[in-house]
Amino acid sequence: MEGSGRLVFVADLDSPVLDDDDRHHLARVLRLRVGEALRAGDGAGRWRPCRLGPEGVLEPRGEVVDEPAPTPALTVAVALTKGARPELAVQKLTELGIDRIVPVVAARSVARWEAERGDRHVLRLRRVAREAAMQSLRPRVPEVTPVRDFAEASALPGAALAQPGGGPPTPATRAVLVGPEGGWSDEELGCGLPRLGLGSGVLRAETAAIAAGVLLGALRQGLVAPVLGAEPPRESTA
Amino acid sequence: MEGSGRLVFVADLDSPVLDDDDRHHLARVLRLRVGEALRAGDGAGRWRPCRLGPEGVLEPRGEVVDEPAPTPALTVAVALTKGARPELAVQKLTELGIDRIVPVVAARSVARWEAERGDRHVLRLRRVAREAAMQSLRPRVPEVTPVRDFAEASALPGAALAQPGGGPPTPATRAVLVGPEGGWSDEELGCGLPRLGLGSGVLRAETAAIAAGVLLGALRQGLVAPVLGAEPPRESTA
Repeated sequence: MEGSGRLVFVADLDSPVLDDDDRHHLARVLRLRVGEALRAGDGAGRWRPCRLGPEGVLEPRGEVVDEPAPTPALTVAVALTKGARPELAVQKLTELGIDRIVPVVAARSVARWEAERGDRHVLRLRRVAREAAMQSLRPRVPEVTPVRDFAEASALPGAALAQPGGGPPTPATRAVLVGPEGGWSDEELGCGLPRLGLGSGVLRAETAAIAAGVLLGALRQGLVAPVLGAEPPRESTA
Repeated sequence: MEGSGRLVFVADLDSPVLDDDDRHHLARVLRLRVGEALRAGDGAGRWRPCRLGPEGVLEPRGEVVDEPAPTPALTVAVALTKGARPELAVQKLTELGIDRIVPVVAARSVARWEAERGDRHVLRLRRVAREAAMQSLRPRVPEVTPVRDFAEASALPGAALAQPGGGPPTPATRAVLVGPEGGWSDEELGCGLPRLGLGSGVLRAETAAIAAGVLLGALRQGLVAPVLGAEPPRESTA
């Protein structure tokens, strides 16, 4: 029973202590009281059952459990767009169990994130991922990488380019690159990656990212199967 | 080219006129000018190419096109929860091409919508669906039904109950019921519907609704296949 309880991340599993934000959240928002059971995790798959002690100290009540990472590791790369959209995508991709989230600057990214702003945003996205992992009881926080350019993102193993009218995912699809609202440039479309369809319509960027996460996760978990005859990645340069 | 342009819904395709909200939105937010091309739709699959005239009048530039409804029709029923969540689910389900959205009061629905409040919320959800359909260039606005109780929703043809650890969708799955944050009650779980898994973790209600929409849509479009051996709906009464 303790294995299914509330999850909170700490810096050190040997002497787990809540940080101030988590302590206030648990006490004020969730009304958790001293003595209640929860799990302390390191955000990298390891956790142990604890009880909430005074002053935010967590009292270990059992050994450390190390949950193996699911395989294959799944990546969604999200082209940066204006507004609060990346936060929603990161929150949902975390819930869905995506292992790595790559913010990408595409040719038509509306928000051109300079180095400094990009760093600040990446830190914010990491906080979103950490919160979402705790909320959805995932002992493993997805990696949010620094901002990448298109060439770096397109070199991800098993990568496909999300594009309306694209083909189905194949058993080799491990990473999906989701373009900005304005779509991929001709040069990006001609990079040689297979094009992956995510549905029948025009999706907002964050919806496309979530749809990619749902399909990759459902394929990994065996809830759906690749369609027969879905080809392995092939050249599609213009 | 005109067939792929911006879409706006009007009351009458024979003499299309923008309503005030749409007129202001097109002019002020999107900066559309008199003379520009767009499509006027009836929200039920019919549309015709037009040009924007003065005073919100649309000048027809071609015949009415009637886009056939995709088959099978897909339904997602969403248990009502507190906060702004249903709006996000309805927006995304519309983008994803789901045909019918059914707000459901489940045993553990946090927000118990009385008749009057429910009506107001349904009207709001219909506005969200209309906006999302225009934005995503879908000539068909999904039906948002009045609030239903669990018995009514569970009688939907091809219905399955979203539940962590549930099985894969089958070729017969046409409707997914997504429970409230507190989960389905034992009685609801014992209703005889097959249980459908949507991923490996604990999803928020609106994320589960979106995931159901992605999977149903991808299966209908042939982007993924049902897993071999997925059983047709069977009794699972406790």
